[in-house]
Amino acid sequence: MSILQIPKRGFSAGEFEGRVERARKIMHKHKFDALVVSAPPNVRYFTGFDSQFWESPTRPWFVVVGLEGDPVAVIPEIGAPEMALTWMKDIRTWPAPVPEDDGISLLKSTIESFPKKYGRVGAEMGREMSLRMPVSDLLRLRDSLSSEIADGSPCIWEIRMVKTAAEIEHINHICQIASDAYEALPAQISAGETEREIARKLRIDIARRGADATPFMPAISGPGGVAQIVCGPHDRAIQEGDILFIDTGSTFDGYFCDFDRNYAVGKISDDARRVHDALWLATEAGIAAAVPGATTDDVFRAMSKIIEEAGAIGNNVGRLGHGLGLQLTEPPSHRLGDGTVILENMVLTIEPGMEYAPGKMIVHEENIAITNDGPRLLTKRAPREMPVIN
Amino acid sequence: MSILQIPKRGFSAGEFEGRVERARKIMHKHKFDALVVSAPPNVRYFTGFDSQFWESPTRPWFVVVGLEGDPVAVIPEIGAPEMALTWMKDIRTWPAPVPEDDGISLLKSTIESFPKKYGRVGAEMGREMSLRMPVSDLLRLRDSLSSEIADGSPCIWEIRMVKTAAEIEHINHICQIASDAYEALPAQISAGETEREIARKLRIDIARRGADATPFMPAISGPGGVAQIVCGPHDRAIQEGDILFIDTGSTFDGYFCDFDRNYAVGKISDDARRVHDALWLATEAGIAAAVPGATTDDVFRAMSKIIEEAGAIGNNVGRLGHGLGLQLTEPPSHRLGDGTVILENMVLTIEPGMEYAPGKMIVHEENIAITNDGPRLLTKRAPREMPVIN
Repeated sequence: MSILQIPKRGFSAGEFEGRVERARKIMHKHKFDALVVSAPPNVRYFTGFDSQFWESPTRPWFVVVGLEGDPVAVIPEIGAPEMALTWMKDIRTWPAPVPEDDGISLLKSTIESFPKKYGRVGAEMGREMSLRMPVSDLLRLRDSLSSEIADGSPCIWEIRMVKTAAEIEHINHICQIASDAYEALPAQISAGETEREIARKLRIDIARRGADATPFMPAISGPGGVAQIVCGPHDRAIQEGDILFIDTGSTFDGYFCDFDRNYAVGKISDDARRVHDALWLATEAGIAAAVPGATTDDVFRAMSKIIEEAGAIGNNVGRLGHGLGLQLTEPPSHRLGDGTVILENMVLTIEPGMEYAPGKMIVHEENIAITNDGPRLLTKRAPREMPVIN
Repeated sequence: MSILQIPKRGFSAGEFEGRVERARKIMHKHKFDALVVSAPPNVRYFTGFDSQFWESPTRPWFVVVGLEGDPVAVIPEIGAPEMALTWMKDIRTWPAPVPEDDGISLLKSTIESFPKKYGRVGAEMGREMSLRMPVSDLLRLRDSLSSEIADGSPCIWEIRMVKTAAEIEHINHICQIASDAYEALPAQISAGETEREIARKLRIDIARRGADATPFMPAISGPGGVAQIVCGPHDRAIQEGDILFIDTGSTFDGYFCDFDRNYAVGKISDDARRVHDALWLATEAGIAAAVPGATTDDVFRAMSKIIEEAGAIGNNVGRLGHGLGLQLTEPPSHRLGDGTVILENMVLTIEPGMEYAPGKMIVHEENIAITNDGPRLLTKRAPREMPVIN
């Protein structure tokens, strides 16, 4: 097992001050007096607060970031001792659960305690975000607030899409852990084992190597490719001629990797080898195209050209990569019409895939950070030849 | 490692037909022509569809259950091959992601294809539910639909709160796996190890024993008790006199266990032992009180009496247990004013806890299924004397 340098867990108060300062510039642009967030990745982004307790949907949690003053945590009493360990100075609690008023009046008075310049408050109402509170409570809050509640998602994504150096080191660390585990996998498994058993071995190995969790690990196999890449594992035993596809979103200190690997079970068809090679080259092209100033459309086209030439008959994924960070997938998307300008310190997946015959799909994926000196590979690049399982 | 009988994964078509039939009776009572669900546990409840891909918030998924006809899955193309493996016959797809119209027009026409009797459609707008789609899309749908969209949460919870026999066997299985792992833990760890390392060992052991995932595992330690029970692990090393508290929500085939265990590190104080014993007795009282016809208030009072007599100075949890199933926590809550009548085949946690000195909390938890012949313990009952770690 290779020895990895483990980044310090958590972030300094200075890091969070920097995040809030940058957020405020973007909030001015979007004309928001405050952002109200409730979803775990957004709460964590501004506070550093971490809890697996998000699994319980009973109690809502809120953070209000205004244009000035300290951000405020408006949270259930049960979370106060741990929130007090973060950089947050202003923590307001109520004794949840209280169905009649689960934090809403406290949230309202908190929002109203911030100065009103634009008369607009941004909430998580838009794309790639889930509000983590009853919608009916948001509507009630909207009706009772003198400011307008508008969709804050574009503003929040503009803030989160560009990562800090410390965030990138977190993502790099989990990418290295998963890369090592992927490389070690063929020696641990053999034909005849089920997808489910293989995923379990890899999950355990990734935990041993220092990952905190593995919320995402589809493992799918099929002769020369797979029909889909997001569900499974099933109890299917891998066999000669299969491609075994495994993807993982594992985490370190809240930050995700998101990349896959393909393995040949014994000897695979010439067609599958040819397509695999084309996708390896498409990945190279996608990585090379992801430079500051280019758009996600450019990155899409760089890969798409090679995929089309290799004889793609389809791809049900709908895009060729995306952002990642505190979530497995984040904006932007590499697809025509997305039009996001790529900036320094974005972290992106490069994910070319194609169906080359009905039900036979192959998909590659790597994770990169954008720098002004060219893309920085965070994953250990997949070998050009598929590793073989015997 | 004890050998557990593993329940069959998934459920029969007959099981889902039964769920839908029962749901329709409850929908009539709530005057809904259809329910529209988007959250993973609700989609899974009606379809059996499972995917770790829920981790990606990019694409919404919907299921529409009407008062007659087949339920309809309205989903991104990427999910169609796997949804086709379920009992669902009517699957409608769109090529997501498409920010301009991510399934909303298809969802609208699907809802409108069902007969209109009450003119009301239920959506996940209420308590203990998160809508998994942009709120702005729901509001757009609401404005364009001729039927009213109302809060369907009370209706959905009435459906899901009572489990089928097959659901209970799933929960029982993961409870048994976690019980065995908890029992085996003291032999694997010792004073001086950190909470984080201990949680990692337990997480790996639970995976080895057959759990699919462990989304929730706070591990917290402190002299004679802990300050909170939902965050952590941290890098604190456990030491003589500590109580090590570990809770887990692990899953088998989508279903959660949710129970904790307490361990004494060497010799703990007499006070801690006394409180621990009172909580063990409160658990007995809570289990005994959870019978069909009683209310959650009754269960609360049965435990609360013992807790108060033992000298509780507080409890920031806000309730003494709750429902569980496809989610770590579900309604009802054992708290005054909840007022839910306990029914056969509910699955509940019994979770008495108390702070007996500032920052010193002890909490017990077991999982039970309600039967007409008395409560059925799904977990292996915690020993009355705390297991000791040396």
